[in-house]
Amino acid sequence: MIVALTGGVGGAKLAWGLNQILPPDRLKIIVNTGDDFEHMGLHISPDLDTVMYTVAGIANRNTGWGVADETWEFMGALDRLGGPGWFQLGDRDLAMHVLRTARLRQGESLADIADDTCARLGIGCAITPMSDDPVRTVVHTTIGPLRFQDYFVRRRCEPCVSDVTYEGAGTARPHSRILSWLADSRLSIIVFCPSNPFLSLGPILGMPELKRTIANARAPKIAVSPIIAGAAVKGPAAKMLSEMGLEVSALGIARHYLGLVDCLLVDEVDAHLAPAIEALGMRVALAPILMRSDQDRVRLASRVIESGPS
Amino acid sequence: MIVALTGGVGGAKLAWGLNQILPPDRLKIIVNTGDDFEHMGLHISPDLDTVMYTVAGIANRNTGWGVADETWEFMGALDRLGGPGWFQLGDRDLAMHVLRTARLRQGESLADIADDTCARLGIGCAITPMSDDPVRTVVHTTIGPLRFQDYFVRRRCEPCVSDVTYEGAGTARPHSRILSWLADSRLSIIVFCPSNPFLSLGPILGMPELKRTIANARAPKIAVSPIIAGAAVKGPAAKMLSEMGLEVSALGIARHYLGLVDCLLVDEVDAHLAPAIEALGMRVALAPILMRSDQDRVRLASRVIESGPS
Repeated sequence: MIVALTGGVGGAKLAWGLNQILPPDRLKIIVNTGDDFEHMGLHISPDLDTVMYTVAGIANRNTGWGVADETWEFMGALDRLGGPGWFQLGDRDLAMHVLRTARLRQGESLADIADDTCARLGIGCAITPMSDDPVRTVVHTTIGPLRFQDYFVRRRCEPCVSDVTYEGAGTARPHSRILSWLADSRLSIIVFCPSNPFLSLGPILGMPELKRTIANARAPKIAVSPIIAGAAVKGPAAKMLSEMGLEVSALGIARHYLGLVDCLLVDEVDAHLAPAIEALGMRVALAPILMRSDQDRVRLASRVIESGPS
Repeated sequence: MIVALTGGVGGAKLAWGLNQILPPDRLKIIVNTGDDFEHMGLHISPDLDTVMYTVAGIANRNTGWGVADETWEFMGALDRLGGPGWFQLGDRDLAMHVLRTARLRQGESLADIADDTCARLGIGCAITPMSDDPVRTVVHTTIGPLRFQDYFVRRRCEPCVSDVTYEGAGTARPHSRILSWLADSRLSIIVFCPSNPFLSLGPILGMPELKRTIANARAPKIAVSPIIAGAAVKGPAAKMLSEMGLEVSALGIARHYLGLVDCLLVDEVDAHLAPAIEALGMRVALAPILMRSDQDRVRLASRVIESGPS
């Protein structure tokens, strides 16, 4: 059994790859909810949706987020009515938000709704939010603390970041099923997907009980570097590392996860960093990390699984 | 100045006609909110939307409700996720519901939101909900009391109706601007649009203060019969009259509005009913009432205005 910690687009791609090669009951995907927010009264879980859409094979492959072949009639009408246009809601994607919001208001949990949604979308593996309790990522910048969506969407990651904190993470309870997966004797690997360490995996690891449980798990922890040749594949990971005074490289990632991760999967172009990472006491495995095609995703997933046993 | 009381499709068509021939500041349209309900957490005001879409010229002319050239991607995705399919929400129409719900939750009033929406849609006349307070139509049937949408949409008006009541109407306050229009010395006609007397105008007249103010207004009250040749143009008006033991004709409508309405506009095919209606003490005016074309709408609107002075 494999547990994967994931957030946005990169993590979702690897999750898709893992789902291709593992029996459905052997893959448990834990998803960041630090980006969740309310928009026009709708509960939005961006990472949960990206992972579900991607694993279901209906994600928009150009944007990474949202649904393929999306239409935008709602946004056009909303604009005409003077509604907010800064957060894009596709007509199909909107069904997810409206229905989930209604179900949450009726008392269903985020995890139970995700289970049902996965079943409806034909997803066999488990995709579970890290917690049913709210955790909200706050990005501290030179212009002040910003909510995730404010930083990421509205301000396009432009403000300079000094720190990232996770409101509610101290008291949020990790979902009980997650704790039991992590305690399961069949657990063979914990995968840290190539997601932003601060914005995607940060909130998951920001829950003390969950971080401790992961640290104490006997299964090897394999992280896939989200940084290749000093740059992030997508999103502000590289920019944030730099602004926070950390090295923008797989070595910086290794230092960030030191004490928690046993092995870092590094792109072949970063092979020269292997000695420095190994000097920290972390194992290194090399692989082509960039996932452009479905084949790339499956290849990386296989490489992650092979890297498990030390 | 003309005040028109209206509900669904027929009333909206006449409102469109009145808006074509009157200066915008001379037309005040009061809309039924007895059909308003909450669906998947969204506040829906079906009659308000029908009237606004129709007067703005963007209504779907085939269905009468919803927006022209609507798309249905949201409903398709909702179905895939196991959401409810009994109430149709078009992609464009949905913008109205989501935005209005968000604004209501932020404390704006239904009337203020309608004002702003009218301005956005280029509507010059006033379109105002009868009240900002909730009034909910209950249809009493042989299978028990039903909420309006349950009766109208889900059960397609099939249950046999014994009575209609208006929950909350006793305490709901008519909007203050409505009371001031009705007290305005420039008020020349109060129009009862050809809307269902129980489901559309019933809730408006179900508010005691509003009914009293209308009854006491010095301006002539002209009703347009929603029944032509013993049948309703659209909807269950004829079926309901019959089930409630009332005559299914313009005469039945005259009896229903007796003491409140001064003049009934009756279709030319029902000219033979004029003596019986006049015998009740109600004036009769004849006109082609059926509105198929824009020209029909304008012609009926003109006829209503001509019928004002006794």
